[in-house]
Amino acid sequence: MDHAINLPGVLAEVQAVFDRYEDALVNNRVEVLDELFWNSPHTLRYGATENLYGFDAIQAFRAGRPAQGLQRSLLKTVITTYGQDFATANVEFQREGSSATGRQSQTWLRTPEGWRVVAAHVSLLA
Amino acid sequence: MDHAINLPGVLAEVQAVFDRYEDALVNNRVEVLDELFWNSPHTLRYGATENLYGFDAIQAFRAGRPAQGLQRSLLKTVITTYGQDFATANVEFQREGSSATGRQSQTWLRTPEGWRVVAAHVSLLA
Repeated sequence: MDHAINLPGVLAEVQAVFDRYEDALVNNRVEVLDELFWNSPHTLRYGATENLYGFDAIQAFRAGRPAQGLQRSLLKTVITTYGQDFATANVEFQREGSSATGRQSQTWLRTPEGWRVVAAHVSLLA
Repeated sequence: MDHAINLPGVLAEVQAVFDRYEDALVNNRVEVLDELFWNSPHTLRYGATENLYGFDAIQAFRAGRPAQGLQRSLLKTVITTYGQDFATANVEFQREGSSATGRQSQTWLRTPEGWRVVAAHVSLLA
Protein backbone atom coordinates (compact mmCIF):
# COMPACT_ATOMS: atom_id res chain seq x y z
CA MET A 1 0.00 0.00 0.00
CA ASP A 2 3.06 2.25 -0.21
CA HIS A 3 2.40 3.97 -3.52
CA ALA A 4 4.68 6.95 -3.67
CA ILE A 5 3.37 9.39 -6.22
CA ASN A 6 5.48 10.43 -9.20
CA LEU A 7 8.78 8.84 -8.27
CA PRO A 8 11.09 10.56 -10.77
CA GLY A 9 12.44 7.36 -12.32
CA VAL A 10 9.01 5.82 -12.76
CA LEU A 11 7.56 9.04 -14.12
CA ALA A 12 10.36 9.24 -16.67
CA GLU A 13 9.66 5.69 -17.81
CA VAL A 14 5.96 6.34 -18.27
CA GLN A 15 6.58 9.66 -20.00
CA ALA A 16 8.85 7.88 -22.47
CA VAL A 17 6.38 5.11 -23.26
CA PHE A 18 3.55 7.64 -23.44
CA ASP A 19 5.56 9.68 -25.98
CA ARG A 20 6.24 6.54 -27.96
CA TYR A 21 2.52 5.76 -28.05
CA GLU A 22 1.63 9.30 -29.16
CA ASP A 23 4.18 9.20 -31.96
CA ALA A 24 2.85 5.83 -33.12
CA LEU A 25 -0.71 7.11 -33.00
CA VAL A 26 -0.26 10.19 -35.17
CA ASN A 27 1.92 8.22 -37.60
CA ASN A 28 -0.43 5.19 -37.62
CA ARG A 29 2.35 2.78 -36.66
CA VAL A 30 -0.16 0.10 -35.81
CA GLU A 31 2.43 -2.46 -34.70
CA VAL A 32 3.61 -0.12 -31.95
CA LEU A 33 0.06 0.65 -30.87
CA ASP A 34 -0.64 -3.08 -30.66
CA GLU A 35 2.57 -3.65 -28.73
CA LEU A 36 1.70 -1.02 -26.13
CA PHE A 37 -1.78 -2.30 -25.37
CA TRP A 38 -1.92 -5.20 -22.92
CA ASN A 39 -2.48 -8.42 -24.85
CA SER A 40 -5.34 -9.66 -22.71
CA PRO A 41 -9.08 -10.26 -22.98
CA HIS A 42 -9.39 -7.88 -20.01
CA THR A 43 -8.06 -4.89 -21.95
CA LEU A 44 -10.67 -2.40 -23.08
CA ARG A 45 -10.84 0.77 -25.06
CA TYR A 46 -13.79 3.15 -25.24
CA GLY A 47 -13.29 5.24 -28.38
CA ALA A 48 -15.19 8.28 -29.62
CA THR A 49 -17.54 6.05 -31.61
CA GLU A 50 -16.98 2.49 -30.40
CA ASN A 51 -16.62 0.37 -27.27
CA LEU A 52 -13.99 -2.34 -27.68
CA TYR A 53 -13.59 -5.26 -25.26
CA GLY A 54 -10.44 -7.36 -25.34
CA PHE A 55 -7.13 -6.97 -27.11
CA ASP A 56 -8.35 -8.77 -30.24
CA ALA A 57 -11.19 -6.30 -30.79
CA ILE A 58 -8.83 -3.36 -30.29
CA GLN A 59 -6.29 -4.83 -32.70
CA ALA A 60 -8.98 -5.44 -35.36
CA PHE A 61 -10.17 -1.83 -34.99
CA ARG A 62 -6.65 -0.48 -35.48
CA ALA A 63 -6.12 -2.65 -38.55
CA GLY A 64 -9.31 -1.35 -40.17
CA ARG A 65 -8.81 2.32 -39.35
CA PRO A 66 -8.10 4.92 -42.05
CA ALA A 67 -4.48 6.01 -41.83
CA GLN A 68 -5.24 9.65 -42.62
CA GLY A 69 -6.29 12.52 -40.38
CA LEU A 70 -4.63 11.22 -37.23
CA GLN A 71 -2.49 14.30 -36.56
CA ARG A 72 -3.34 16.10 -33.37
CA SER A 73 -1.90 18.57 -30.89
CA LEU A 74 -1.73 17.87 -27.17
CA LEU A 75 -3.15 20.81 -25.24
CA LYS A 76 -2.58 19.50 -21.73
CA THR A 77 -0.97 16.29 -20.46
CA VAL A 78 -1.13 14.91 -16.93
CA ILE A 79 0.82 11.76 -16.16
CA THR A 80 0.70 10.41 -12.60
CA THR A 81 2.48 7.34 -11.29
CA TYR A 82 1.55 5.35 -8.18
CA GLY A 83 4.41 3.34 -6.74
CA GLN A 84 6.55 1.43 -9.19
CA ASP A 85 4.08 -0.27 -11.48
CA PHE A 86 0.98 1.77 -12.08
CA ALA A 87 0.21 5.03 -13.83
CA THR A 88 -2.51 7.13 -15.42
CA ALA A 89 -2.02 9.39 -18.44
CA ASN A 90 -4.66 11.94 -19.36
CA VAL A 91 -4.53 14.44 -22.18
CA GLU A 92 -6.65 17.08 -23.82
CA PHE A 93 -6.04 17.21 -27.55
CA GLN A 94 -7.20 18.92 -30.73
CA ARG A 95 -7.31 17.27 -34.14
CA GLU A 96 -6.13 19.19 -37.18
CA GLY A 97 -9.10 20.93 -38.77
CA SER A 98 -11.36 20.48 -35.76
CA SER A 99 -12.32 22.94 -33.04
CA ALA A 100 -13.50 20.22 -30.65
CA THR A 101 -11.44 19.31 -27.60
CA GLY A 102 -10.71 15.62 -27.25
CA ARG A 103 -9.79 13.79 -24.08
CA GLN A 104 -7.73 10.61 -23.87
CA SER A 105 -7.41 8.65 -20.62
CA GLN A 106 -5.09 5.67 -20.25
CA THR A 107 -4.34 3.39 -17.33
CA TRP A 108 -0.84 1.87 -17.58
CA LEU A 109 0.52 -1.23 -15.87
CA ARG A 110 4.11 -2.43 -15.73
CA THR A 111 3.99 -6.00 -17.04
CA PRO A 112 6.86 -8.48 -17.46
CA GLU A 113 6.99 -7.27 -21.10
CA GLY A 114 7.08 -3.58 -20.17
CA TRP A 115 4.54 -0.82 -19.62
CA ARG A 116 1.17 -1.55 -21.22
CA VAL A 117 -2.20 0.24 -21.48
CA VAL A 118 -4.80 -1.87 -19.69
CA ALA A 119 -7.75 0.48 -20.21
CA ALA A 120 -8.33 3.58 -22.35
CA HIS A 121 -11.14 6.04 -22.99
CA VAL A 122 -11.21 8.65 -25.77
CA SER A 123 -14.01 11.17 -26.26
CA LEU A 124 -14.83 14.65 -27.47
CA LEU A 125 -15.92 17.27 -24.98
CA ALA A 126 -19.65 17.86 -25.55
CA MET B 1 5.64 -6.67 -10.83
CA ASP B 2 3.54 -9.62 -9.66
CA HIS B 3 0.07 -8.30 -10.40
CA ALA B 4 -2.28 -11.24 -10.30
CA ILE B 5 -5.45 -10.34 -12.12
CA ASN B 6 -8.82 -10.43 -10.38
CA LEU B 7 -7.81 -12.03 -7.11
CA PRO B 8 -11.24 -12.92 -5.70
CA GLY B 9 -10.83 -11.04 -2.43
CA VAL B 10 -9.57 -7.89 -4.12
CA LEU B 11 -12.26 -8.04 -6.80
CA ALA B 12 -14.94 -8.35 -4.11
CA GLU B 13 -13.56 -5.27 -2.35
CA VAL B 14 -13.57 -3.18 -5.50
CA GLN B 15 -17.02 -4.42 -6.54
CA ALA B 16 -18.34 -3.34 -3.14
CA VAL B 17 -16.82 0.14 -3.29
CA PHE B 18 -17.90 0.50 -6.92
CA ASP B 19 -21.49 -0.37 -5.93
CA ARG B 20 -21.32 2.14 -3.11
CA TYR B 21 -20.17 4.83 -5.55
CA GLU B 22 -22.96 4.01 -8.02
CA ASP B 23 -25.59 4.15 -5.31
CA ALA B 24 -24.25 7.51 -4.13
CA LEU B 25 -24.18 8.83 -7.68
CA VAL B 26 -27.80 8.08 -8.58
CA ASN B 27 -28.98 9.32 -5.19
CA ASN B 28 -26.74 12.40 -5.25
CA ARG B 29 -25.10 11.57 -1.92
CA VAL B 30 -22.35 14.08 -2.53
CA GLU B 31 -20.51 13.35 0.72
CA VAL B 32 -19.98 9.75 -0.37
CA LEU B 33 -18.87 10.78 -3.87
CA ASP B 34 -16.37 13.17 -2.29
CA GLU B 35 -15.17 10.46 0.11
CA LEU B 36 -14.51 8.00 -2.72
CA PHE B 37 -12.46 10.35 -4.89
CA TRP B 38 -8.81 10.65 -3.90
CA ASN B 39 -8.31 13.90 -2.01
CA SER B 40 -5.33 15.06 -4.04
CA PRO B 41 -4.42 17.77 -6.53
CA HIS B 42 -3.45 14.89 -8.88
CA THR B 43 -7.00 13.55 -9.10
CA LEU B 44 -8.82 14.37 -12.31
CA ARG B 45 -12.22 13.81 -13.81
CA TYR B 46 -13.14 14.31 -17.44
CA GLY B 47 -16.94 14.63 -17.52
CA ALA B 48 -19.31 14.78 -20.46
CA THR B 49 -19.10 18.58 -20.54
CA GLU B 50 -16.15 19.57 -18.34
CA ASN B 51 -12.54 18.74 -17.56
CA LEU B 52 -11.79 18.95 -13.85
CA TYR B 53 -8.27 18.94 -12.42
CA GLY B 54 -7.73 18.28 -8.73
CA PHE B 55 -10.00 17.15 -5.94
CA ASP B 56 -11.14 20.69 -5.11
CA ALA B 57 -12.46 21.29 -8.65
CA ILE B 58 -14.28 17.95 -8.61
CA GLN B 59 -15.80 18.67 -5.22
CA ALA B 60 -16.98 22.13 -6.34
CA PHE B 61 -18.57 20.59 -9.43
CA ARG B 62 -20.46 18.03 -7.34
CA ALA B 63 -21.69 20.71 -4.96
CA GLY B 64 -23.07 22.78 -7.82
CA ARG B 65 -24.70 19.96 -9.75
CA PRO B 66 -28.51 19.64 -10.05
CA ALA B 67 -29.70 16.77 -7.87
CA GLN B 68 -32.33 15.61 -10.39
CA GLY B 69 -32.06 13.32 -13.41
CA LEU B 70 -29.16 11.26 -12.10
CA GLN B 71 -30.90 7.88 -12.38
CA ARG B 72 -29.29 5.52 -14.84
CA SER B 73 -29.08 1.86 -15.74
CA LEU B 74 -25.78 0.02 -16.07
CA LEU B 75 -25.74 -1.91 -19.34
CA LYS B 76 -22.34 -3.53 -18.96
CA THR B 77 -19.78 -3.42 -16.15
CA VAL B 78 -16.16 -4.58 -16.32
CA ILE B 79 -14.09 -4.40 -13.14
CA THR B 80 -10.50 -5.64 -13.31
CA THR B 81 -8.01 -5.71 -10.43
CA TYR B 82 -4.22 -5.84 -10.76
CA GLY B 83 -2.49 -7.26 -7.71
CA GLN B 84 -3.70 -6.02 -4.33
CA ASP B 85 -3.97 -2.28 -4.73
CA PHE B 86 -5.03 -1.24 -8.22
CA ALA B 87 -8.18 -1.61 -10.29
CA THR B 88 -10.11 -0.27 -13.24
CA ALA B 89 -13.89 -0.09 -13.47
CA ASN B 90 -15.58 0.58 -16.78
CA VAL B 91 -19.31 0.72 -17.45
CA GLU B 92 -21.70 1.45 -20.25
CA PHE B 93 -24.84 3.15 -18.96
CA GLN B 94 -28.09 4.72 -20.11
CA ARG B 95 -29.76 7.66 -18.42
CA GLU B 96 -33.52 7.64 -17.89
CA GLY B 97 -35.20 9.33 -20.86
CA SER B 98 -32.10 9.20 -23.08
CA SER B 99 -31.26 6.82 -25.89
CA ALA B 100 -27.54 7.64 -25.80
CA THR B 101 -25.04 5.17 -24.38
CA GLY B 102 -22.72 6.63 -21.77
CA ARG B 103 -19.34 5.30 -20.74
CA GLN B 104 -17.70 5.74 -17.34
CA SER B 105 -14.08 4.77 -16.74
CA GLN B 106 -12.50 4.88 -13.30
CA THR B 107 -9.02 4.01 -12.06
CA TRP B 108 -9.04 2.95 -8.41
CA LEU B 109 -6.13 2.91 -5.95
CA ARG B 110 -6.02 1.37 -2.48
CA THR B 111 -4.92 4.21 -0.20
CA PRO B 112 -4.36 4.14 3.58
CA GLU B 113 -7.94 5.49 3.85
CA GLY B 114 -9.41 2.84 1.56
CA TRP B 115 -10.09 2.47 -2.17
CA ARG B 116 -10.25 5.78 -4.00
CA VAL B 117 -10.82 6.93 -7.60
CA VAL B 118 -7.66 8.63 -8.83
CA ALA B 119 -8.87 9.34 -12.38
CA ALA B 120 -12.24 9.18 -14.12
CA HIS B 121 -13.64 9.82 -17.57
CA VAL B 122 -17.33 10.01 -18.49
CA SER B 123 -18.64 10.53 -22.01
CA LEU B 124 -21.49 9.75 -24.37
CA LEU B 125 -20.88 7.47 -27.33
CA ALA B 126 -20.94 9.69 -30.44
